[in-house]
Amino acid sequence: MTTIQDIADKMNVSKSTVSKALNDAPDISETLRKQVLETAVALGYTKLRRYKKPVKKICIITEKENIQYEEPHHFAYDILLGFRQMAEPAGFDIEIVPVDVQMQRNQRYDVFMLEHDYVGAFAIGFSLNDPWIQDFKTSHTPAVLFDNYIIGNPSTAYVGIDNDEGMELAVSYLAGLGHRKIAYLSGSLGSQILQIRHAAFLRAMHQHGLKTSSDSTGCSYYLSECMEKHLPRFLEKGMTAIICSQDTLANSALIQCQQLGYKVPEDISIIGFDDIPIAAYTSPPLTTVRQDRLELGKSGFFALSSLLNSISISTFLLHAQLIERKSTGEVPVT
Amino acid sequence: MTTIQDIADKMNVSKSTVSKALNDAPDISETLRKQVLETAVALGYTKLRRYKKPVKKICIITEKENIQYEEPHHFAYDILLGFRQMAEPAGFDIEIVPVDVQMQRNQRYDVFMLEHDYVGAFAIGFSLNDPWIQDFKTSHTPAVLFDNYIIGNPSTAYVGIDNDEGMELAVSYLAGLGHRKIAYLSGSLGSQILQIRHAAFLRAMHQHGLKTSSDSTGCSYYLSECMEKHLPRFLEKGMTAIICSQDTLANSALIQCQQLGYKVPEDISIIGFDDIPIAAYTSPPLTTVRQDRLELGKSGFFALSSLLNSISISTFLLHAQLIERKSTGEVPVT
Repeated sequence: MTTIQDIADKMNVSKSTVSKALNDAPDISETLRKQVLETAVALGYTKLRRYKKPVKKICIITEKENIQYEEPHHFAYDILLGFRQMAEPAGFDIEIVPVDVQMQRNQRYDVFMLEHDYVGAFAIGFSLNDPWIQDFKTSHTPAVLFDNYIIGNPSTAYVGIDNDEGMELAVSYLAGLGHRKIAYLSGSLGSQILQIRHAAFLRAMHQHGLKTSSDSTGCSYYLSECMEKHLPRFLEKGMTAIICSQDTLANSALIQCQQLGYKVPEDISIIGFDDIPIAAYTSPPLTTVRQDRLELGKSGFFALSSLLNSISISTFLLHAQLIERKSTGEVPVT
Repeated sequence: MTTIQDIADKMNVSKSTVSKALNDAPDISETLRKQVLETAVALGYTKLRRYKKPVKKICIITEKENIQYEEPHHFAYDILLGFRQMAEPAGFDIEIVPVDVQMQRNQRYDVFMLEHDYVGAFAIGFSLNDPWIQDFKTSHTPAVLFDNYIIGNPSTAYVGIDNDEGMELAVSYLAGLGHRKIAYLSGSLGSQILQIRHAAFLRAMHQHGLKTSSDSTGCSYYLSECMEKHLPRFLEKGMTAIICSQDTLANSALIQCQQLGYKVPEDISIIGFDDIPIAAYTSPPLTTVRQDRLELGKSGFFALSSLLNSISISTFLLHAQLIERKSTGEVPVT
């Protein structure tokens, strides 16, 4: 179990400093207090609740099929950490509940929340065919949805990054390197975030006066289809750059291109999306659009606590950021 | 000058309660403390700064041509009040600076901010031909723009309501009343928010399988053109409902329709946008899409203080709300 000493060691400060910060002593700066609280949550310190109010429970719902969060290299790890770093010091109890389609079919979202006494939810990884996506259209228990937007329900909010901006950054960067034939490779459009990114790609290309067609886009649920059908098609049609809807897909595309005898970035440039930890370690390291997952988690809590206080947030987007690494370069001379 | 007694009288609490709340005494509930602070700001109490930090100055920039804020019935009054209700207790000095095109031409935004020692700005009422809209694309001083979205600059954020949702609420409500021929009347598309609402109208109509054409939309800078050209056109083409881009326009449309011998809502339904104070007092009272301007002002401060703390918010939208009054009814039987 994590102790005050552990937190002090981790931060290289005295035990009494940590104790003061945890107890809201007036001679501790707000910045330091915040750092101590965040470290405490990150280390799993469990005695954070400083007020003796009745505990309110929040549920982080993760879609079992789509989301992993247990290890630091998993996509949702930092999102959950950021959320908890805000929520636990504010006096909430956080429970993480992975759900599958069967469970969603068995019990409506509102009923599930009521039965377990949750005041609100932060939902991650839902695709459009998840039953609760229908529930969220009319549900009454506050829910913040990561990367899913529900129109017309004042009890839900959408948190994510500005994907329009992310695609604009990617396309304008490639255009600056001389690329004109830019393809888009995506997972299945059965997920709303991938629909949003797909539309954002088309808009960004249009904005730069660059052509798009069915020759230059490919979206499939199966990775094998992306690699064996779409990718060879792109290469054959003379595409010089490929933007991928996720880093995992971009990593596979990197490997596949090289196996087909194309050098990255000399023959073809590849850009990912997300900046998951692996992106810095692919070969070559991946240029990608970052979403700051720790801040997104914190934003998720801010949006949920607003909904709980009747401030009716609809949409909360963070700026995207282009991280330039080695998988992109000047358009090849033909 | 406002005194503690004035605040106590206004809230019907004791002077010592107010004093305690202003001085952060521990035996005052957080809710009450917040109410006292908000009342203090609303009454113009000027001794709020409780910490002796160096004062940081924020500038609320209003576009002179487009925005009035001085009186409670003005559009921006509550937005500014909400902003100040958050900012002043947080220790910021707020200055309101109306700017015109000439002033924007004379000095770049960043230079203006630097010269006056402002750490950040909340900008209201800018249209696309305002010179500083160009500056905001590359500026470095944090700026939150009400109803204007700048892509690709991490130092700016966009705050407003969810206009897609607002239009969806209006169109789906009219469709529920049997209307199929719905027109859209708008001010000039030289303002980004009116572009956004125009696109949102087209999307909402499409979503409901309803037709749109040049016959059913009209956008003009001059009110006279809206009333004398577009409105008669709509009536002639048998439109049974008109959604207007702003309440002021809707109010003129109400009057004009009646002068042309059409009863509202028996012959034609009219919906506004904004829910400004006058909307409840038009004849008949106006059905409209509300934007909660007090909350928008508060959200503006939240977004700005996030930018000041390097949390890179891009977009912050509040839910829209349909306010049903008497200017809308069942589609007329033909």
